Amino acid sequence: MKNYKIAVLKGDGIGPEIVDEAIKVLDAVASKEGFNLEYNEYLIGGSAIDVFDNPCPDETIKGCLNSDAVLFGAIGGPKWDNVEKQKRPESGLLKLRKSLGLFANIRPAIIFDELVNASTLKPEVIKGVDLTVVRELTGGIYFGEPRYKDDNKAYNTMIYTRDEIERIAKVAFEEAMRRNKKVTSVDKANVLEVSELWREVVEEVAKNYPEVELEHMYVDNAAMQLVRNPKQFDVILTGNIFGDILSDEASMIVGSIGLLPSASIGGKVGLFEPIHGSAPDIAGQGIANPIATILSAAMMLDYLGEKAAGDKIRDAIKQVLAKGYRTKDLASFDAKEVVTTTEMGSLIAEHA
Amino acid sequence: MKNYKIAVLKGDGIGPEIVDEAIKVLDAVASKEGFNLEYNEYLIGGSAIDVFDNPCPDETIKGCLNSDAVLFGAIGGPKWDNVEKQKRPESGLLKLRKSLGLFANIRPAIIFDELVNASTLKPEVIKGVDLTVVRELTGGIYFGEPRYKDDNKAYNTMIYTRDEIERIAKVAFEEAMRRNKKVTSVDKANVLEVSELWREVVEEVAKNYPEVELEHMYVDNAAMQLVRNPKQFDVILTGNIFGDILSDEASMIVGSIGLLPSASIGGKVGLFEPIHGSAPDIAGQGIANPIATILSAAMMLDYLGEKAAGDKIRDAIKQVLAKGYRTKDLASFDAKEVVTTTEMGSLIAEHA
Ligand SMILES: CC(C)[C@H](C(=O)O)[C@@H](O)C(=O)O
Ligand SMILES: CC(C)[C@H](C(=O)O)[C@@H](O)C(=O)O
Repeated sequence: MKNYKIAVLKGDGIGPEIVDEAIKVLDAVASKEGFNLEYNEYLIGGSAIDVFDNPCPDETIKGCLNSDAVLFGAIGGPKWDNVEKQKRPESGLLKLRKSLGLFANIRPAIIFDELVNASTLKPEVIKGVDLTVVRELTGGIYFGEPRYKDDNKAYNTMIYTRDEIERIAKVAFEEAMRRNKKVTSVDKANVLEVSELWREVVEEVAKNYPEVELEHMYVDNAAMQLVRNPKQFDVILTGNIFGDILSDEASMIVGSIGLLPSASIGGKVGLFEPIHGSAPDIAGQGIANPIATILSAAMMLDYLGEKAAGDKIRDAIKQVLAKGYRTKDLASFDAKEVVTTTEMGSLIAEHA
Repeated sequence: MKNYKIAVLKGDGIGPEIVDEAIKVLDAVASKEGFNLEYNEYLIGGSAIDVFDNPCPDETIKGCLNSDAVLFGAIGGPKWDNVEKQKRPESGLLKLRKSLGLFANIRPAIIFDELVNASTLKPEVIKGVDLTVVRELTGGIYFGEPRYKDDNKAYNTMIYTRDEIERIAKVAFEEAMRRNKKVTSVDKANVLEVSELWREVVEEVAKNYPEVELEHMYVDNAAMQLVRNPKQFDVILTGNIFGDILSDEASMIVGSIGLLPSASIGGKVGLFEPIHGSAPDIAGQGIANPIATILSAAMMLDYLGEKAAGDKIRDAIKQVLAKGYRTKDLASFDAKEVVTTTEMGSLIAEHA
């Protein structure tokens, strides 16, 4: 029987409870599809600070590198908000991304027909939206040197090299080939030199994908167009900070912030996590929605080559939503029965 | 009779036709309120490139500095898209902002009751939205040095000094004092040093405004919250590039991109311009909507101390919209009669 080693990083807040449900569902499909998943837990974020005084201990990085994939919950909380910056949960996440070489963050913005009313946008604007954001994740202004701060001035550097742009552009064009063959590259080339290079390199990479339509869009316009007509997009390709902003905007536009998964790839081992945060205010109450994490687990199975199992999970989620089961966050959208975090996990496991 | 010198920078595309209508309306209220406006035209953007091979000639800067205010149309067009960067229309606008010391860009996102359906957001989400973005305009990554590009790497510098942050924060808190007494300062302090300083300085400035509630928000979250619940905002205070992105997003959320004005202040002379672009595709057809420019002219009158005249213009616009007159862009929103650019200008002038 095939065996996959999964590093499990539950993190803080609702992280542990939602990851537990994802594992429940993973085990259900694994036994049906005839493979085995072996889990090893490591600390990350606030819970790692509490034990090791370090938001991303070496042991965690080693554990991930020794696995076939990483399943990640969420990190952070008020308890660690006043720790010095290098030791904060967020710094742990950035160090993990960098150490694992996860240069590509992929965030599909999916619409669930049952939840079309959960968006603040009109149903006719969002019905049929099917876009994915490909965000560069280990470069740009997040990691650029020099970076500096004193009492009178502070700065950061937004930097990209040709190689960094080339490899993320390839990921976007490959995504587009599997999807609707359109890439919208987002930059601010009318103002920034770093965006001029971005645009040049993306155009060169595009030459190898003659079937894919490429368009360039300024980031301010992209932020507008996502609201005006999100259906125009297929793959949005962009840098680290623009991607941070636009992918969060896109997820709110489809209205299902508690439902969206993400994959971070590019290194030896991929990492899969919900796009939402650790929601410390509702942790431990059994009301968190585990679906984003369960969908992330499905993306992990695709990545491991177990696409049939991934599809089983996605189908199960659709069935459970169609039957009217909702966690509390979605109770006002055609709910027939409001269920807890663990009940939702069990329902999806049963239907998978 | 009081006399104000207005530098008129019509620019490119629809710039000239919409500015002409604003002048028509300005003249109508000036004669009623008993002051005089003296206009001097200067070239900017593409039309300045054509004549002077320079998108922002010294003569234009001098002319503006010799005036009481600047009325600006719009710049740019495909004709100048392949000019080298330093000579592009956009560079002219950036040089003008910097030369005039316009460090504060103020963009109110107003909802017109008649046009509530023009938004892609649900009416219940946007009805009653009343927010304004205060964007730092002459610093940050737009102007930061060093900036560099070769074939293999490129970078820009996002830099702020204490003084730059202090003065823009003051503008935002003063705005809030005239409005609903809440400032949301947007940054990315969990990642960027420049944002850490931003946050510190904003907190210090806030101490002088004990009546104003201050909250901090990360830029990714702000991009989401604008879609989720725009009513939560009063004044959004942010840096140059985040402000570029968020103010465009906000304008699309209220659904009236052709209707929103802006003021750029801080130096010796204020500049007033619509937030939309030069729309070269519809230039010269008499279908452009002049309302954003006319509202910008009203902001200019407020700035000159002629608030009663500014109010007359705003009232006139409301009346004309209430009577069902619409330019083509808004023809599908309860139009009784679709009118041309000049007809719209004349109608507003008559009602003012
Ligand atoms: C927590 C934070 C550092 C992180 C980021 O900005 O990348 C988050 O917003 C994300 O998008 O994963
Ligand atoms: C034209 C461009 C340089 C400009 C900017 O980015 O500031 C525009 O988008 C704006 O917001 O006024």
